Amino acid sequence: MLEFTVEDWSSEELARLRGIYGPLTESVRDLVDATIRTEADAATVAAAKKEVDAVVARLRRRQIDGAFGVRRTAAGESVGWGNAVIGIRNALAPPVVTHRDDTGTVRAEFQLGAAYEGPPGHVHGGVSAMILDHLLGEAASPDGTPRFTGGITVRYLRATALGGLRAEAVRTRTDGVKTFCSGHIADGEGITVEAEGVFITPRWLRDAGT
Amino acid sequence: MLEFTVEDWSSEELARLRGIYGPLTESVRDLVDATIRTEADAATVAAAKKEVDAVVARLRRRQIDGAFGVRRTAAGESVGWGNAVIGIRNALAPPVVTHRDDTGTVRAEFQLGAAYEGPPGHVHGGVSAMILDHLLGEAASPDGTPRFTGGITVRYLRATALGGLRAEAVRTRTDGVKTFCSGHIADGEGITVEAEGVFITPRWLRDAGT
Repeated sequence: MLEFTVEDWSSEELARLRGIYGPLTESVRDLVDATIRTEADAATVAAAKKEVDAVVARLRRRQIDGAFGVRRTAAGESVGWGNAVIGIRNALAPPVVTHRDDTGTVRAEFQLGAAYEGPPGHVHGGVSAMILDHLLGEAASPDGTPRFTGGITVRYLRATALGGLRAEAVRTRTDGVKTFCSGHIADGEGITVEAEGVFITPRWLRDAGT
Repeated sequence: MLEFTVEDWSSEELARLRGIYGPLTESVRDLVDATIRTEADAATVAAAKKEVDAVVARLRRRQIDGAFGVRRTAAGESVGWGNAVIGIRNALAPPVVTHRDDTGTVRAEFQLGAAYEGPPGHVHGGVSAMILDHLLGEAASPDGTPRFTGGITVRYLRATALGGLRAEAVRTRTDGVKTFCSGHIADGEGITVEAEGVFITPRWLRDAGT
C-alpha cells in the first residue's frame, strides 16, 4: 500500500514553498545541461565539483528521509514535487506541465535539451516512453484517483529531434477496474511516437469502494 | 540521417576525460537528490541557487553547441556520455552500467533514488520503461550497429520500490531488418516489470549493405 502524506499546506503556503525551491531546481537543471556540454579545463571542472559538493552539504543539513513522496494538501491538491516527469523540485524532470481540457484530454508542451538525448541530436526513445507513460496515467485519472500502469505499448514512427515538443493523451474507454488510454508526442512536423496503455485501479481503492 | 562524430581519442585520453568529467557529474547527481530532499530555509536555498548559477556560468564559458551526441573513438568505441540512461556526463542518468555476457544477455545493476520516484517510495513506471527501452536496444545491437526502437511493450507486474535493482535483456530472434528482444527489471523479491521490443536496422545502414 502506498502512502500519500497529507500536509496542512494552504494554497499560499504552497506558493511560498514553490517560490523557494522552484528557482533552485531550475538552476540545477541548467547545471545538468552545462555538465554535459562544458569543455572547461580540468582545474575549472574540479573547482566546480568542490563548490557543488559544498552546496550539497549545506542543503543536506536539514533534509527529509528518503524520497519526497506524494503529498496532498488539506484542500486535496496533489503535490508530486519529486516526480521524475512533472516534479518542480526534481531537476531530472523537464518538467512536463500538463493541462486537462473539458473533454479530458491531457496536453503538454515542453523542451527537451541535451540531457534527454539518445541517438545523436534526438530524444532517447526511453524518454519518450517515460513521458507518454506519465501523460497516459494522468488521462486515466481525471478525478485524481491513483491508477497504476498495467501496461503500455509505444510505437516509434520516426526519430524525435531535441527541442520543443507537444504531447497529448486521452482516455479511450473503461472496463471495470481497467482504464484504457492513448496518446502521442509530436514535433513541428507531426507525430513521432504513439502509445496505448491500460491503467488499473489499485485493490485497496476498490476495497474502499471508491 | 544521424551523425556519429569520430574523435581521435586514444583509450588513455578517454580515461583522462572520464576522470575529469565523471566526478563532477556524480556531484551533480548528488545535488539533484539534495534539491528534492532538502528542508533548508529560504535564505540557504537562495544562496545555493546563486552558487549553482555561478558554477554554471564558469562551465559554460567553453562549451559545445547543442547536445553531446554519440562519438566514436578511432578504435571504434562508442562514447555516449550525454545519454539519458547510461551517460557518465549526464546527471539524469543513474547511470545504468551495462555488461554483455557470452550469450548476448545484457545485464545491469543500479540504484534508483528520490529522483526516479513516481508513486510514493516507488520507481516511476516511465523510468522503468525508459531503462528497459535502453537495455533492449543494447541487446538488439550486439555488434554496436545502431538499431532504432520500432516499438516496445511494457507490463507492470507490481510496483518497484526505490533502491537497488537489477535488469536484463536478451535478443530473442531476428527477422530481416527486425530484431526482437525481451527483458525485465527485478528487485530483491523478483521481477517487477517485463518488456518486449522490436528494433529496426536503419535504412541508411541497409543501403550501405551492412
